[in-house]
Amino acid sequence: MMFVEKPDLEVCLSPALLHLYNTQNTIVVIIDIFRATSTITTALHNGATSVIPIASVKDCIELGNTIPNSITAGERDGKIVEGLMMGNSPFEYSENVIQNKTLILTTTNGTRLLHMVQNPYQIVIGSFLNLSIVCNYLISQNKKVILGCASWKDKFNLEDTLFAGAVVNNLRSHFNINCDSARAARHLYLSTGGAHFLEFLKDSSHYKRLSGFGLLKDLEYCTTPDLHPVLPVLIGNEIKLLHYS
Amino acid sequence: MMFVEKPDLEVCLSPALLHLYNTQNTIVVIIDIFRATSTITTALHNGATSVIPIASVKDCIELGNTIPNSITAGERDGKIVEGLMMGNSPFEYSENVIQNKTLILTTTNGTRLLHMVQNPYQIVIGSFLNLSIVCNYLISQNKKVILGCASWKDKFNLEDTLFAGAVVNNLRSHFNINCDSARAARHLYLSTGGAHFLEFLKDSSHYKRLSGFGLLKDLEYCTTPDLHPVLPVLIGNEIKLLHYS
Repeated sequence: MMFVEKPDLEVCLSPALLHLYNTQNTIVVIIDIFRATSTITTALHNGATSVIPIASVKDCIELGNTIPNSITAGERDGKIVEGLMMGNSPFEYSENVIQNKTLILTTTNGTRLLHMVQNPYQIVIGSFLNLSIVCNYLISQNKKVILGCASWKDKFNLEDTLFAGAVVNNLRSHFNINCDSARAARHLYLSTGGAHFLEFLKDSSHYKRLSGFGLLKDLEYCTTPDLHPVLPVLIGNEIKLLHYS
Repeated sequence: MMFVEKPDLEVCLSPALLHLYNTQNTIVVIIDIFRATSTITTALHNGATSVIPIASVKDCIELGNTIPNSITAGERDGKIVEGLMMGNSPFEYSENVIQNKTLILTTTNGTRLLHMVQNPYQIVIGSFLNLSIVCNYLISQNKKVILGCASWKDKFNLEDTLFAGAVVNNLRSHFNINCDSARAARHLYLSTGGAHFLEFLKDSSHYKRLSGFGLLKDLEYCTTPDLHPVLPVLIGNEIKLLHYS
């Protein structure tokens, strides 16, 4: 009988802890549930050609001027930014708005984390909207995986960790898990009973922040599993759909 | 009716996140369950005059040469260090060994975090061994509190977070909690049913590391609530008992 070693699965709870992890030869899943990775998943499922993640508002605007058929978008502190064409709500990116367009996106946490990852094998965009396809893909690749929570300005947040816990729970028999963050994330997921995510998150900082801006429907949308079964990955400096079934 | 604002309660999950928190005018509880804060609590309860936390092994040995009636002790990577007189197991510090002695202690995580805290109101040593008295004291002071997990080389760990969750659960009606780390810690605590902590921690990195060194009885001891109802606080560069009832 051949002994096959399972690949490692780890969870990084904040960009400020990323330096503790070796991301080489690793698939890194970027998680920013409210709302960058949910919005990226939505835009690509609704026909965007690609999403270009950008660190600064200034660079976002400049790039928008050079790419035909593009939309500049983003947020700072959860709010729309002056000078950008659109915001960071997934509801803005319906098919008739985004089809065949390039979305140039800058956000407080998610796009920042994505740029921090050093030399990975691949970067995948994860959200509840594409939970199952991300899990199935990770299982199929037999590679080391790190789930990277974008958090809120480096502070731990519940919603990204809850999603990480859902993935850990799904992947646990296929991976070697010796990571307390992964264990804690899974405990969080299990304490929801595997459903009613928004109910669980009502007592979270981000829920209070965004619902205060009147974005309750965004929060509901971003916690709905498998609405958009697509697999966005970073190729060069663009996020595009990987066709995988 | 007078409106009295409750003080804030936050949890910092790793020393690498400490810079995100304002520790001014705050009581900071240092938590290093396996084993520094458990050992400090034990040594003081068993009659040590004081505990001096020290960052480096070299400084620990040098200070030991200048303080009469002192014991140098500590660990690196969970193991005893050459040149120090004793290790980091609470079982080494029985009354007949430690009474009227000064313990000079250097550890991988706990003593390091303690030295990182900037300008707090007070530093308190927390462990399951003195859980209730720490909670009662914090409630009585009506000051902002940060629970600081020493973690393992900056990586999140389950045991420190579980203890933080026990404190959050106890303090929640007396404090304003708008901190996702505190919420997650409490969820972890609740998922143990408020007991059987060691059972819960069997699937943790530190349990595996220390039980591999044959230290199972240390782990059992360090997860036993209220064995040593004393309140160690930092005064100058020494940890001493605060007499509080």
